Amino acid sequence: MTETLEPTLIETPETSPFHKPVHEQHSRILKGDLKVPFTRVTLTNGETFDRYATEGPGSQPEVGLPLLRQEWIEARQDTEEYDGREVQLLDNGRTALRSGIHRDQWQGRAYKPRRALEGKNVSQMHYARQGMVTPEMEYVAIREGVTAEFVREEVATGRAIIPNNINHPESEPMIIGKNFLVKINANIGNSAVTSSIAEEVDKLTWAITWGTDTLMDLSTGDDIHTTREWIIRNSPVPIGTVPIYQALEKVNGEADKLTWEIFRDTVIEQCEQGVDYMTIHAGVLLRYVPLTANRVTGIVSRGGSIMAGWCLAHHQENFLYTHFDELCEIFAKYDVAFSLGDGLRPGATADANDAAQLGELKTLGELTRRAWEYDVQVMVEGPGHVPLNLVKENVDLQQDWCHEAPFYTLGPLATDIAPGYDHITSAIGAAHIAWHGTAMLCYVTPKEHLGLPNRDDVKTGVITYKLAAHSADVAKGHRNARDWDDALSKARFEFRWKDQFALSLDPHTAEAFHDETLPADNAKTAHFCSMCGPKFCSMRISQDVRDRFGADLTPEDAALGMKQKSEEFIELGASVYVVP
Amino acid sequence: MTETLEPTLIETPETSPFHKPVHEQHSRILKGDLKVPFTRVTLTNGETFDRYATEGPGSQPEVGLPLLRQEWIEARQDTEEYDGREVQLLDNGRTALRSGIHRDQWQGRAYKPRRALEGKNVSQMHYARQGMVTPEMEYVAIREGVTAEFVREEVATGRAIIPNNINHPESEPMIIGKNFLVKINANIGNSAVTSSIAEEVDKLTWAITWGTDTLMDLSTGDDIHTTREWIIRNSPVPIGTVPIYQALEKVNGEADKLTWEIFRDTVIEQCEQGVDYMTIHAGVLLRYVPLTANRVTGIVSRGGSIMAGWCLAHHQENFLYTHFDELCEIFAKYDVAFSLGDGLRPGATADANDAAQLGELKTLGELTRRAWEYDVQVMVEGPGHVPLNLVKENVDLQQDWCHEAPFYTLGPLATDIAPGYDHITSAIGAAHIAWHGTAMLCYVTPKEHLGLPNRDDVKTGVITYKLAAHSADVAKGHRNARDWDDALSKARFEFRWKDQFALSLDPHTAEAFHDETLPADNAKTAHFCSMCGPKFCSMRISQDVRDRFGADLTPEDAALGMKQKSEEFIELGASVYVVP
Repeated sequence: MTETLEPTLIETPETSPFHKPVHEQHSRILKGDLKVPFTRVTLTNGETFDRYATEGPGSQPEVGLPLLRQEWIEARQDTEEYDGREVQLLDNGRTALRSGIHRDQWQGRAYKPRRALEGKNVSQMHYARQGMVTPEMEYVAIREGVTAEFVREEVATGRAIIPNNINHPESEPMIIGKNFLVKINANIGNSAVTSSIAEEVDKLTWAITWGTDTLMDLSTGDDIHTTREWIIRNSPVPIGTVPIYQALEKVNGEADKLTWEIFRDTVIEQCEQGVDYMTIHAGVLLRYVPLTANRVTGIVSRGGSIMAGWCLAHHQENFLYTHFDELCEIFAKYDVAFSLGDGLRPGATADANDAAQLGELKTLGELTRRAWEYDVQVMVEGPGHVPLNLVKENVDLQQDWCHEAPFYTLGPLATDIAPGYDHITSAIGAAHIAWHGTAMLCYVTPKEHLGLPNRDDVKTGVITYKLAAHSADVAKGHRNARDWDDALSKARFEFRWKDQFALSLDPHTAEAFHDETLPADNAKTAHFCSMCGPKFCSMRISQDVRDRFGADLTPEDAALGMKQKSEEFIELGASVYVVP
Repeated sequence: MTETLEPTLIETPETSPFHKPVHEQHSRILKGDLKVPFTRVTLTNGETFDRYATEGPGSQPEVGLPLLRQEWIEARQDTEEYDGREVQLLDNGRTALRSGIHRDQWQGRAYKPRRALEGKNVSQMHYARQGMVTPEMEYVAIREGVTAEFVREEVATGRAIIPNNINHPESEPMIIGKNFLVKINANIGNSAVTSSIAEEVDKLTWAITWGTDTLMDLSTGDDIHTTREWIIRNSPVPIGTVPIYQALEKVNGEADKLTWEIFRDTVIEQCEQGVDYMTIHAGVLLRYVPLTANRVTGIVSRGGSIMAGWCLAHHQENFLYTHFDELCEIFAKYDVAFSLGDGLRPGATADANDAAQLGELKTLGELTRRAWEYDVQVMVEGPGHVPLNLVKENVDLQQDWCHEAPFYTLGPLATDIAPGYDHITSAIGAAHIAWHGTAMLCYVTPKEHLGLPNRDDVKTGVITYKLAAHSADVAKGHRNARDWDDALSKARFEFRWKDQFALSLDPHTAEAFHDETLPADNAKTAHFCSMCGPKFCSMRISQDVRDRFGADLTPEDAALGMKQKSEEFIELGASVYVVP
């Protein structure tokens, strides 16, 4: 169906002190005219293995990233720079308002925001529907090993999105859709009780180092505007936000004081900064709110509960729903993608797939169509907490009701009994739902339900979700996905320990665990490990089997030759073990 | 279909210093005449929640456990004590042989082994088929909340097993079968390069504290006999072994020197000690071995590779297969259950469900029938490494070909790319395969493929597998399984933090994670946490929704009353938040 582009390979040195390769056997390479980054693993047997990379070129946080897409955007001649909205003290919360200063302001590149010229639409979906193959689509095609035309078609139909705000020219195009590699998102962000800008930028870099495909800044405390600026200027991956959080800060946390005008102004502020996709809880309709009254855990989405609170206070329909067309018009001017929020997602397995959740999902399907009328890109968010037997129904209904728009789920957790291990309970559901067609998985860290993730939690969450996403790619039989597994398994079978580490999602941890019991350097070339010791090593014995039967023999040939082989075997010392 | 036994409740004090409850809100209680232990969680709202417990009464390692089942065994009057096989220096490996002494010998209760009287069969399956309900079956029925008759029927058909060697009277009966709670097994054991007896006994206690249902001692180094003695005398859960490991030690690690006689003697040795189930790789037939020649990772089962090596060296059929009937006769005398080993299980996703694996599985089905002719209990082992899309086929074929004998799988890992995180890659496959009917899951620790698990790894492995098993119970709609989730979710929704911790699989970790960001004691009664801070707490807002709509209102009633409620809401202060 698709054709693989032939890439040219360019080796690049590691120049940035902020972006070291995570393992000595890893290097970054660039492929194609568009210089698409890959991670190259150099194996000890002379082979190399190239992996999809989300690391980008690396940045000095104070300077930010180079403007990869600026030329492409300008070349289309459908945008203009303009003065933009003035940043206000309130954009950074009440502390800024009180003190009269913006703390820790971004000091890097100054820029004017850009928007579509009057009457123009700059979304990738719009271009795709016009039959245009953009550099963004070509870039994605190289990353995914498909044709640019295939990418264009998937974006045109809405089955995939390339979140790419024109005000985030630093970003490296990536695609979210069920016919591409399953992607993952990492959430970071401060809250009223914890964290600093520097910590959040560090979490960004750390999450990207370990392979997150997008990142959401869910800050709800002070310095929201400034934190986001630092994050976007340093992010090679798309940045998502939930603008209602900042809007609520602007009205002192009182949901009933929220207005469409305040929300709209916040959205413009974020569009101008370069947010690539925004969670909009436009499906929390007044009539669905009472459906949550008898749930075990009610409404667990922050955005969902804010909008429910607003609907109750005003006895009016959700203003995100009533003003949805205006939002579409704004998003089309910057190419911001909708992430239609599931404000009524279940927060306990008991509440999974209930009337509130499914009612909202139907509405999200309606909104998907409305956004597509504006050629605005859409993905749809999903749960949450779902027992395994109800997981597939979630993605089946979403794909049906939302016309195959990409599904983007938070786990789901397969059980509620393991706080502290919810990266695992949710990876079980996540791998399962991605196998059945979810396009992107939002990570869950070990701190879920208990506290805000720190640096270590971010890493654990990202690695856990990378393995869940990859499990789904393999189960889907996705193009060449299993090659990675096979390369690692082959290294394992051949006792190439260093290659096994290097091919791991987390080489450091793999090597450290190995070294805990057998630290000596020669143990890394040993044909056994501490699990079984030399005599019980099944891989070793198994290699003897192979040596005796040869790699090309059919079982029939083998059976014929077996008598002779068994005699040789005895002659050769009759032991399949290396006795130390 | 089944009726729940009405238990009487007896509170017991925690007397043993070796067996403290893991959390202050936990206590052990005993139910019924047979004094079946449960874990009682005392909640701050005055309610209690009782959980299936595998903790047993606790022991002083030097003394061992009380003989719970001794009376029941003796009352059946179908066994005799006898002198038994003399323990030999070689039973503890070559170090013992060289030095002439057994190190660290067990100093607790001396006992004579017991076996069935001539012509008798003492297996639970035999009793069940005779229509007898044993105390073991009653005990299990109370644990599982079903009738003893249901247990008898499941054991009689072979759909479930109660591994209960008459020489392990310390053990608390437990049942493995798809119509019961999904069980988990923890592997421990030393190897030639690491570990001591004391460490292994500590791992046993630790694994049981966190809830393992059975434990396999996979020791392959020195002191095998003595280590096993300490473990069995202190284990309230069934103990499994792979006797070929010890047999191989006895022939100096040279597989071709193995004989049926040496193996048989080792099996008798272990039967007399009280091993409850043994992995027997009788399905590794000569003709299957060449089928592994073109695999990515060949044979990865230690037992499988040993037997393959033997078959090759002798060009003879596997002696475990040719002597299988003799094994059945021995097992019937002690009530040892078969765990039919999958010596040809895939060691990479590339090798899943291949001809070698499925060929062996067919043979295991044949052996299951043969064992059942002797009324010997059987479970069947399964993989390993399997991509998600091939998982269900494994359990479907096993249930079909092995006549619904319980399936006991190792994971399976859903991908090979994450060494260091294989507890997670395998929990994904494990939850999935258990949902579809696997009865017991063998844990995988973070050290899998890299080294031997230490104490922390054992805990992580057990917790990970408990959550995977429970996810499956919930997905299967198993009797009341979700009650646990609901109790925890309810505590979460009602901000009963201490109850949320106490109901967690790992209360310590949950509480520690919470305290990392909000350590103050009053934060544990706070109606928010560090994730969102007070203003953004969706649960808090959601409770307001509930308060306004009431728990009993239908959505229709609610819609009618909504206008009025919205007015009240404004009057009441119009904020859904607690502003600090």
